[in-house]
Amino acid sequence: MATTGKQLFTTLDADGTLTVAIEDVTVPDPSGSQVLVKMEAAPINPSDLAILAGAADLENASYSPGKFVATVPEPYNSGSKARHGLKLPAGNEGAGTVVATGDDDAAKALMGQRVACVPGYAYSQYCIVDASTCLPLGDHSAEEGASAFVNPMTALGFVESARRDGQDAIVHTVGASNLGQMLTRICKEDGIALVNIVRKDSQADLLAELGSTHVVNSSDDDFMDQLRTAIDETGAFYGFDPIGGGRMVDQVFQAMEQVAASRMSEYSRYGSNEMKRMFIYGRLDTGMTMLSPSYGFGWSLSGWLLFPFLQSADRETVERMRKRVLDNLTTTFASHYKTRVTLDEMLTKDAITDYRTMKTGEKYLVTPWS
Amino acid sequence: MATTGKQLFTTLDADGTLTVAIEDVTVPDPSGSQVLVKMEAAPINPSDLAILAGAADLENASYSPGKFVATVPEPYNSGSKARHGLKLPAGNEGAGTVVATGDDDAAKALMGQRVACVPGYAYSQYCIVDASTCLPLGDHSAEEGASAFVNPMTALGFVESARRDGQDAIVHTVGASNLGQMLTRICKEDGIALVNIVRKDSQADLLAELGSTHVVNSSDDDFMDQLRTAIDETGAFYGFDPIGGGRMVDQVFQAMEQVAASRMSEYSRYGSNEMKRMFIYGRLDTGMTMLSPSYGFGWSLSGWLLFPFLQSADRETVERMRKRVLDNLTTTFASHYKTRVTLDEMLTKDAITDYRTMKTGEKYLVTPWS
Repeated sequence: MATTGKQLFTTLDADGTLTVAIEDVTVPDPSGSQVLVKMEAAPINPSDLAILAGAADLENASYSPGKFVATVPEPYNSGSKARHGLKLPAGNEGAGTVVATGDDDAAKALMGQRVACVPGYAYSQYCIVDASTCLPLGDHSAEEGASAFVNPMTALGFVESARRDGQDAIVHTVGASNLGQMLTRICKEDGIALVNIVRKDSQADLLAELGSTHVVNSSDDDFMDQLRTAIDETGAFYGFDPIGGGRMVDQVFQAMEQVAASRMSEYSRYGSNEMKRMFIYGRLDTGMTMLSPSYGFGWSLSGWLLFPFLQSADRETVERMRKRVLDNLTTTFASHYKTRVTLDEMLTKDAITDYRTMKTGEKYLVTPWS
Repeated sequence: MATTGKQLFTTLDADGTLTVAIEDVTVPDPSGSQVLVKMEAAPINPSDLAILAGAADLENASYSPGKFVATVPEPYNSGSKARHGLKLPAGNEGAGTVVATGDDDAAKALMGQRVACVPGYAYSQYCIVDASTCLPLGDHSAEEGASAFVNPMTALGFVESARRDGQDAIVHTVGASNLGQMLTRICKEDGIALVNIVRKDSQADLLAELGSTHVVNSSDDDFMDQLRTAIDETGAFYGFDPIGGGRMVDQVFQAMEQVAASRMSEYSRYGSNEMKRMFIYGRLDTGMTMLSPSYGFGWSLSGWLLFPFLQSADRETVERMRKRVLDNLTTTFASHYKTRVTLDEMLTKDAITDYRTMKTGEKYLVTPWS
């Protein structure tokens, strides 16, 4: 057949010119184990924003229907050298209906079904993906299934990582995010102690309603006291942070070390023997990560990404995680959206300047056929 | 008997007053597997300096024979809260002669022998240590054996760590240090590729004389180019840094990622899949460690200390390392000293302001009986 559909592309030129535009593309027929998904909903996650907008000057960009052209300032433009001149698709995940398949049985079995998928170019009307990567959604709507992958699997991945490293307690630095709320529900279900850091009282209230027992507010004067108490009560020397820049990770390490030092019977110039581990899984703040020399040498800070984690996990674990997501899609793993936009609408000044701020609880959903 | 000897103590009070003084102490008799070592030489390593001087204002300190009293400014004083009021000994390692032993055979066998040891209070005329931790020096002098532990075992530990993590190449950010020279010789002997970073041409020359093939100078305008080339040629995505503060680790991560990205066939917004690992094993710069968001999420930065490493290694590995040190004490593992000082002399303004700068190749040796 040769289907035609709209698709978003983002191109950064060497001079810092960022062009994001919707184009018509020809979609090839699916073959073998592939399926063609008519995409009905795709969320805009923080992980999508880096190539959609990044540090671009959106205020002075030029906007036209289905397109904007902006300038990415230094040092961000040079920092993105590897993508200069490349025309990239965008949109990690989404949900839609399988409208054509390859000849393999696994592909044919999905014909007509609604599925969640992770094409990497979900801001499209059509995507081709492998049947094995699809999550059949049953009676769930596309909106319910659109975020079935990134946030749920990431939150579950944190718990799997913690367990693999022998931990039964976690610190999460953005407790009230969509992902943070999921993590709160997962930890409650699994008996993992969770220290949730938030920035506002309203966020603390929200998490308390979800049953979170250790919520600390970084805007409070006694934040560090709160944090130390929560770490002491939970034994959380292991945490995840999507902020990246600034001193949040540093503060968590400091609080962990102060708790560990208070438990030591003897002083050591090298700090405590308690291993303190933090993982940066996002870059909400693109400034420098700053680490002070105040927690000895028993610490480790690493990047954490879902796909490498899934590659490192055995197939059984991943299948168990996927099944749990599907079984609890509208409860534990429910996502909420502030608003819905079409492919064209997502490139308007109003929309992009709003979702680029990544405010807690204000996620956008793209509906490519509206 | 009840031997009496001089010993150095360092005390930081809550108000930031640092008192370092030589005192007379009574040394108990060794028992069981213990031996009493009459200490003849002990090096001043960077790892000793934190509690000896740290960030104290040495310029305005008050000096008297065998004593100085200085002020530790904020935030360093608050950062050292855990040691407030504690009277601490100092001096990781040294060498001397066994002059008394406990009743165990292993202890008695060392009677009269010269040994290297790691008492943790080597700035003393006498130390009591367990026989099992002593390295008998045979005909070597105390000066030859004084640094037989910290630097040699650390340098060997780097190579062991790298091998354990499947690496055959290492970056070292202070190539020309005593430890760096040892590491250069070890890597050459073991066929491990080594990227040595130095700050001066004279240091580059010194390492070239040792046979180092990849020396890059951070003072050169094209430092990053040099570093990328060296990483590309060696495949070194694994490194050790004793500087800690500033951007050295960040620059190494950047160069590693740029090399990895140049080898990728496809662009990834998340950076390369090449795992980049750095270890901070010292704090020559007590400023903030700064990490830029320019190398994706495939990286890990950890503290590295010799004692936890040795605890994690099996007994056979540690014995093999110790034997190698002893067998090559005046070649591979030779240390050089700028000058020798007595216990009293090491607390004079001239001495402490000089060795506190930790200049490459200017290590001090303490000789407690001179």
